Amino acid sequence: MQENDRDLLPEGLGDRLVQQAWASQTVRRAAHDVLASHGYARVETPVLEFEKALASRMAGVQVRRMFRFVDPVSMRMLALRSDITAQVARIAATGLAEAARPLRLSYSGQVVTIKGDGLDPARERLQLGAELVGADSTEAVAEIVELAIETLRAAGATGVSVDFTLPDLVDTLSAGALPLPAQNIEAVRQMLDAKDAGGLVDAGGGAYLPLLYAVGPFDSAIERLAAFDANGAQGGGVLSGRIAALKAIAARVGGKARLTLDPSERHGFEYQSWFGFTIYADGIPGSMGRGGTYAILGQTGRNPEPATGFSLYPDPLIEMVAAASGEERRLFLPLGHDRDVAARQRAIGWSTVAALSDADDARALGCTYRLENGEAVAL
Amino acid sequence: MQENDRDLLPEGLGDRLVQQAWASQTVRRAAHDVLASHGYARVETPVLEFEKALASRMAGVQVRRMFRFVDPVSMRMLALRSDITAQVARIAATGLAEAARPLRLSYSGQVVTIKGDGLDPARERLQLGAELVGADSTEAVAEIVELAIETLRAAGATGVSVDFTLPDLVDTLSAGALPLPAQNIEAVRQMLDAKDAGGLVDAGGGAYLPLLYAVGPFDSAIERLAAFDANGAQGGGVLSGRIAALKAIAARVGGKARLTLDPSERHGFEYQSWFGFTIYADGIPGSMGRGGTYAILGQTGRNPEPATGFSLYPDPLIEMVAAASGEERRLFLPLGHDRDVAARQRAIGWSTVAALSDADDARALGCTYRLENGEAVAL
Repeated sequence: MQENDRDLLPEGLGDRLVQQAWASQTVRRAAHDVLASHGYARVETPVLEFEKALASRMAGVQVRRMFRFVDPVSMRMLALRSDITAQVARIAATGLAEAARPLRLSYSGQVVTIKGDGLDPARERLQLGAELVGADSTEAVAEIVELAIETLRAAGATGVSVDFTLPDLVDTLSAGALPLPAQNIEAVRQMLDAKDAGGLVDAGGGAYLPLLYAVGPFDSAIERLAAFDANGAQGGGVLSGRIAALKAIAARVGGKARLTLDPSERHGFEYQSWFGFTIYADGIPGSMGRGGTYAILGQTGRNPEPATGFSLYPDPLIEMVAAASGEERRLFLPLGHDRDVAARQRAIGWSTVAALSDADDARALGCTYRLENGEAVAL
Repeated sequence: MQENDRDLLPEGLGDRLVQQAWASQTVRRAAHDVLASHGYARVETPVLEFEKALASRMAGVQVRRMFRFVDPVSMRMLALRSDITAQVARIAATGLAEAARPLRLSYSGQVVTIKGDGLDPARERLQLGAELVGADSTEAVAEIVELAIETLRAAGATGVSVDFTLPDLVDTLSAGALPLPAQNIEAVRQMLDAKDAGGLVDAGGGAYLPLLYAVGPFDSAIERLAAFDANGAQGGGVLSGRIAALKAIAARVGGKARLTLDPSERHGFEYQSWFGFTIYADGIPGSMGRGGTYAILGQTGRNPEPATGFSLYPDPLIEMVAAASGEERRLFLPLGHDRDVAARQRAIGWSTVAALSDADDARALGCTYRLENGEAVAL
């Protein structure tokens, strides 16, 4: 969102004026067309809900980041949505609980947080994504990663790259070949996430050190991870299934995006299970979004359901598309023009701007053509 | 919005599931394509703002209907938007204050109120509309009314009808040929609005009685209004300009919608100036929206600016479109299908659903065709 009027709008909230709003529409339409073409049916969710409903379906939703207030009707606490994924999870577990699996859903909408995220002051963002409910297999992940890439490219992104991670890596290793005292697990996770070798050793995670080097371009990093895992004294082969899955996913999507691996990255993947990914594009600072596998908490008496999905935050891409957009074909219709001719011009793609009085100035109104004797004449 | 889960969602808030969300997208795209083709550039506004900014641009915005809460960042009062028109007015008066006039803008988005409206319990609604800023002439009104009709028809509405009104009628008459004591003016307005002949006489508005009969199908009602106005003892001809304008507007749009006149209808037109209209469609209970002429309060030191616009609330139309939608062309892609063939099928309009495992059931997943040997075969 662009801030155009700092005196009038709260920090981190803004309008999209003409060029940006056009780009926003263009990006959303292109993305939803791709999602629909792969069988992902759109759902729409309310901009506010009971706070509890927003927080209860998935681990890791941060209630303290939401705008919250009492509903004068129910006298219960409401919150503005800060993540549509949690709402789609609610739909999958309730309204569409009986729909056939795998269930493919897509969405887009505005999400709001009390404070911006790190260096980004924006408190309202467009979120757009897809969820594949009922599956978290290698096939499911490959479909979702490929779909995220295709969606971004259709929306105008270039130079897409994807960083893979294994969010439950420390849990898996510490439960198997590389045991850790329970009180050290969180510290080891944090030091791996921070890429802090000294801190990792101090936290008792010296055996995990090779993971810090299994990072970088996918093909070489996965081999270092495999070597670490194959060494019985270290990983003990417990990762072989994960490594095969990552290779299968990379084989499917490698031709469409640059791939990297950072197996111990955890920040932002707190609610993901075995697989996570972050997606980037040329010219866009920070990431475009992320995704992975997770579990949806079901209704009472039902088991959690596996799911795979991604969320994109396209605002910076929209700015880029807006900046690159060319001139529109706007046709000025002088006073007394033939309305049937004007309708036919619109039907073949013109935007028309009808004069309301003699004072209307075609050029000032952004027109590059003028209707004369039934034809569009360049100004 | 459909309520699918009364236990989980607050009263008046709901999701749109698959068919409804598809219809919502279809309606919004069709509407925005029409608006863009007439030169109305889209803008997007934040879902929340300073309460004061939402209330200060236009008369008649009801702050007490909005969800309001303190912004932890600015410590000032924020409100969820209940009317996007007020936000577009803000943009016209600030960010686009220097843009050439007439300025054509369009918008759509969700608006929220604490309580539903009359019998409708919905607290979140889709609002979609257009504003023509800098003009409130007959030409401007004709363009806006015609555009509202064309937008609704493109979005799938049939049997569109439009009811014209003159919101400042009592002010105009009481300042001229039919003077009223100042303390009686509001009562006369109310009795006319309520069509209460006895109450009107009691309020000292006996001379206004003929207005109650200048109601109904446009052609006959406008003649009764003209007769009332032409009678020097009554209106005294002060309405002749208005009557000529209404006739010109009716001549422009009469072929596209049924027209009626209710000159003293005021409910819902509190911030309109000389012209207002309500728009209806077959099969939709209540109105689809309304519009008219109004004034935008400018920045300090600037004069109010005339404007004309309309707002539609398409939720019931979306339900109707969803109910009427046909079967989608969904193509099941069995395990091991040729991905290039699948991409070509999507390019020619198919939605594809890829099998993730042998357990996936094409029919249960809503597919009517299956890819076999590179061809779509009916199931």
